[in-house]
Amino acid sequence: MAGRSEIDALIEMMAKLPGLGPRSARRAVLHLIRKRAVLLQPLAEQMETVARTARECLNCGSVGTSDICEICSDEARATGLLCVVEDVADLWAMERSGVFKGRYHVLGGTLSALDAIGPEELHIPKLLDRVAGEEIEEVILALNATIDGQTTAHYIADQLEGRVRLSSLAQGVPIGGELDYLDDGTITAALNARKSL
Amino acid sequence: MAGRSEIDALIEMMAKLPGLGPRSARRAVLHLIRKRAVLLQPLAEQMETVARTARECLNCGSVGTSDICEICSDEARATGLLCVVEDVADLWAMERSGVFKGRYHVLGGTLSALDAIGPEELHIPKLLDRVAGEEIEEVILALNATIDGQTTAHYIADQLEGRVRLSSLAQGVPIGGELDYLDDGTITAALNARKSL
Ligand SMILES: [Zn+2]
Ligand SMILES: [Zn+2]
Repeated sequence: MAGRSEIDALIEMMAKLPGLGPRSARRAVLHLIRKRAVLLQPLAEQMETVARTARECLNCGSVGTSDICEICSDEARATGLLCVVEDVADLWAMERSGVFKGRYHVLGGTLSALDAIGPEELHIPKLLDRVAGEEIEEVILALNATIDGQTTAHYIADQLEGRVRLSSLAQGVPIGGELDYLDDGTITAALNARKSL
Repeated sequence: MAGRSEIDALIEMMAKLPGLGPRSARRAVLHLIRKRAVLLQPLAEQMETVARTARECLNCGSVGTSDICEICSDEARATGLLCVVEDVADLWAMERSGVFKGRYHVLGGTLSALDAIGPEELHIPKLLDRVAGEEIEEVILALNATIDGQTTAHYIADQLEGRVRLSSLAQGVPIGGELDYLDDGTITAALNARKSL
């Protein structure tokens, strides 16, 4: 069916998004087509805007629309407090809790022998640079409570030992839990009860 | 955070799609931003194309990219056989089964006293016109096996009684089942074993 191929192509692209499959992609696309003037056209434009403007912060590795993100360039945020997270979704989860007023460093993943991901594949060298170059007093390791997350935290702690105060999120993070699944209250409790390493 | 607002706006739009919520929308958008050149930009363009070209078929109510859809204008499809479905997702499910070689009529929903949806809110008058004007020998009522679906089937059967041969999908459609959830084999069996009304 020649004319449906444009719609099919859209469904195929949507079906590849995390959390969607063929069936939910078909539902979503039909919904968008029914309301194409008020939903599909604005969504296309917003995607185009984000595709054009989104970039990784050269300093912390978060995403935003400028070379240095809003958090890194926000003079009101504490410069001495650096929170290390695995990915941007975790940074967003921390921000939703509203309790952290320092800055971030996004690793872009965890160390993994299995997937051959070493420190150089992550933003770990840049983290060490920042600790050496910025006036950082405390590094909070807010990695997920998974094996890879904790391995990565230990590796970073080893690298930074004696150079800066180190702490990790503690109380409230369940074993095997991932930050992005936690409610704001749990994150707040874990941050407030962080323990020195 | 001024610069993130474009990304937040995109997440908000995605979160409203059926099957997605705030968390899966955040995941999908981060995924798209990470691969913005190969995923986000093409997806934006495809959405723009579909928003510009998609339209409802003036004859059957399906969606395509021309005023008369590919099925309606396909000379190879049997003109005497008309399959009535609730919505486009059901038509697509029928097409995936590959067994039906006639044409369709998409109602756009079901009759519902509760939601004040009467025949005029659906494409029922147009269906009656088609049966009167086209050389249709049999109307297959392929409505969902829900109360509203069956109520709608009975209403249409009453309207068309004596004017055309009527049948409905039978064997294989589970009670309360919806076509779009069924596998192709079940749809094939139900169509082959359709019973006259
Ligand atoms: Zn930054
Ligand atoms: Zn049509």
